[in-house]
Amino acid sequence: MNFTEMEGFKYVEMGACAAKGFSANGLRCGINDTPGKNDLGIVFSDREAFAAAVYTTNKVKGAPLKVTADHLKVSGGRARAVVMNSKNANTCLSDGEEKAERMCRAAASALDIPEEQVLVASTGVIGQPFDVTPVENSMKELVSGLSPENHIEAEKAVMTTDTVPKEVAVRFQVEDVTYSLGGMAKGSGMIRPDMATTLSFITTDMDVAPELLQRALNVNVKKTYNCLSVDGDMSTNDMIVLMANGAAGGNRVDDAGSEGYKALENALYLVMEGLVKMLARDGEGATKLIECHVSGGVSPEQASVIAKSVISSNLVKCAMFGEDANWGRILCAIGYAETDVDIEKVDVDLASDKGRIAVCRDGAGVPFSEDTAAEILSSDEILVDVELNSGKEKGRAYGCDLSYDYVKINGDYRS
Amino acid sequence: MNFTEMEGFKYVEMGACAAKGFSANGLRCGINDTPGKNDLGIVFSDREAFAAAVYTTNKVKGAPLKVTADHLKVSGGRARAVVMNSKNANTCLSDGEEKAERMCRAAASALDIPEEQVLVASTGVIGQPFDVTPVENSMKELVSGLSPENHIEAEKAVMTTDTVPKEVAVRFQVEDVTYSLGGMAKGSGMIRPDMATTLSFITTDMDVAPELLQRALNVNVKKTYNCLSVDGDMSTNDMIVLMANGAAGGNRVDDAGSEGYKALENALYLVMEGLVKMLARDGEGATKLIECHVSGGVSPEQASVIAKSVISSNLVKCAMFGEDANWGRILCAIGYAETDVDIEKVDVDLASDKGRIAVCRDGAGVPFSEDTAAEILSSDEILVDVELNSGKEKGRAYGCDLSYDYVKINGDYRS
Repeated sequence: MNFTEMEGFKYVEMGACAAKGFSANGLRCGINDTPGKNDLGIVFSDREAFAAAVYTTNKVKGAPLKVTADHLKVSGGRARAVVMNSKNANTCLSDGEEKAERMCRAAASALDIPEEQVLVASTGVIGQPFDVTPVENSMKELVSGLSPENHIEAEKAVMTTDTVPKEVAVRFQVEDVTYSLGGMAKGSGMIRPDMATTLSFITTDMDVAPELLQRALNVNVKKTYNCLSVDGDMSTNDMIVLMANGAAGGNRVDDAGSEGYKALENALYLVMEGLVKMLARDGEGATKLIECHVSGGVSPEQASVIAKSVISSNLVKCAMFGEDANWGRILCAIGYAETDVDIEKVDVDLASDKGRIAVCRDGAGVPFSEDTAAEILSSDEILVDVELNSGKEKGRAYGCDLSYDYVKINGDYRS
Repeated sequence: MNFTEMEGFKYVEMGACAAKGFSANGLRCGINDTPGKNDLGIVFSDREAFAAAVYTTNKVKGAPLKVTADHLKVSGGRARAVVMNSKNANTCLSDGEEKAERMCRAAASALDIPEEQVLVASTGVIGQPFDVTPVENSMKELVSGLSPENHIEAEKAVMTTDTVPKEVAVRFQVEDVTYSLGGMAKGSGMIRPDMATTLSFITTDMDVAPELLQRALNVNVKKTYNCLSVDGDMSTNDMIVLMANGAAGGNRVDDAGSEGYKALENALYLVMEGLVKMLARDGEGATKLIECHVSGGVSPEQASVIAKSVISSNLVKCAMFGEDANWGRILCAIGYAETDVDIEKVDVDLASDKGRIAVCRDGAGVPFSEDTAAEILSSDEILVDVELNSGKEKGRAYGCDLSYDYVKINGDYRS
């Protein structure tokens, strides 16, 4: 995976436990029948942390999202733990909030912390009765195994059709203090732009004022998670939680103009963009990561809307799966993007680690070698590079190809 | 195919040649290499007709659309013929308009009619050089074979990945005069709501004032073609042409309050809804027609937006392919529809010729027999029936399931 490089930031291991003071665990409590597949997880801070969250904008919202939002309100934005499960989304059920509260209560009791400092996230089938007893019965065991090394066990507990765990973390310095910021994400299908968050849990050992934590999260959701599409379907349970516990020491970041805030925003960008690329690459049935970079736009919004339109097109996605340089479909998707665009100025290149080729200039096709194009598209990371020649603004979006396996995976997901 | 019944209207054969005075033909001129596959077609009126048209809203517009719009402007909305080809969309080419004009000129010359009374439509690959010589060389042969019986040859000339020809016609009476209205459509992929027109040619032997012809077309595009989605991709070459030649006699329809206008609107609705159902059922790789009926809406717009959101969801489409009653995905798609909705009032039923089953009441799941659900979903025409319980307005949308074959067809369409 080709992560963005930025001076002063170093990619490190350990995901959501890269930051000091955080530990995690996961196990199979029995919601899931598959032996060896974790279905219950937890991320824990050894001290009070500030927490910020972003939720799906779907009007059907999972009960865990409502309970998490309630808890953050009651606790004044403070949290100690996030408890999470897969296999059942706890959504569209008349007793969903009660079940979500019971999950938090079990964790709070096992950890001896206030219930409102426990956040909760669920993923899986919507509208299926949810038996929370296995969660309650396994909570002590889950908590007793908390350890920084078990970050991967928590990640495994929220994986559904994901084929690989997704973790990214970075290390950086501000005024001689070393900080870490890292996270985990799950998500494979039911992902679309404009609040395609999937489930993500990100932690840092910086000390950050709650309003700046939320601000940094919002800024980066717009640039990363909201520019990701796998299938255009928006989940009911999407949520990102960002926790900052201050365990690294140093001053509290409380000024949006400070060096500390800038470092926080950049670190978060790197981690969230990395997670988004991993989510796109592991999209259901995906064989390729597709990035669309748009430059020369009149506004960042225009560039972003066009980039999202291209990576969301089923026909472009199928062409990429078939490694077919059918650039007319790219132009077609630019043409129906919901923004103004001067089509007769548009240039398109296709690129990968195997080369770059011009396929369209001034809105019309240019001759190119099909062999070279096929070679470029045989890579598993493809860049569709669009130059609008209308201004100086840029936008990016992230997606994947559409394969037989997407249909196979989704033809009978419940069984 | 289960067509809507309406008193006073009878479905008849002959498609775009059901109306008096219209003839058609099609042949293979050589744009296409496949032996026996028509690639050039024509629909002709033996007298001057008024014509109305609706075009794609994609900002990338095929050259034939521009030339058609120009001709209708110059001719004052009068037309005698539509010439059409498949295999090449004549789009995103620097010399596209010249090529489209040459097609019209060839037809005008062979028919001895004014060039501006010839309209033109193309479908196929975007951005591929288009050699129009075979069209010119075959025009005389094409025109010499014009006959009402050859309606199907013209339809075959515009079929691309379509697996069946699509024709619907109705007969009706107004003030003791018998009229016919019928048409043909092509389209299989690259179809999405909000101006998913595909190519459609509809004719009638009524005499209709041009502004009412356009009005009846616009009204029905909104109710039918704009509620059709196969894959969410909007073509660059979509166009519907409606011609009225008055060959049946009777008075000119020139009053929107008249019985004649009402009959025109209804006839057009039946033909366009019929074509839309055939288009959805023959969507690329489709094994099922999916209709979503929404009732109890606060406005027709709300009901329509929700219906479109459901039939456009890739996850709902995959579930239908898998015959899996995963109603949570339906609720999810209702929840992200771009309109207000009180989710806690929503009821959902699944139905087909094999029965009906309630899956959701008041926004939450209700127990149902998976066996009965599987039996209902084994049909090849499925109804997702949504009751919003918020008002009295209704909306409908038409789509299909998403199968392995969609991916196969689109993985390498150009070759």
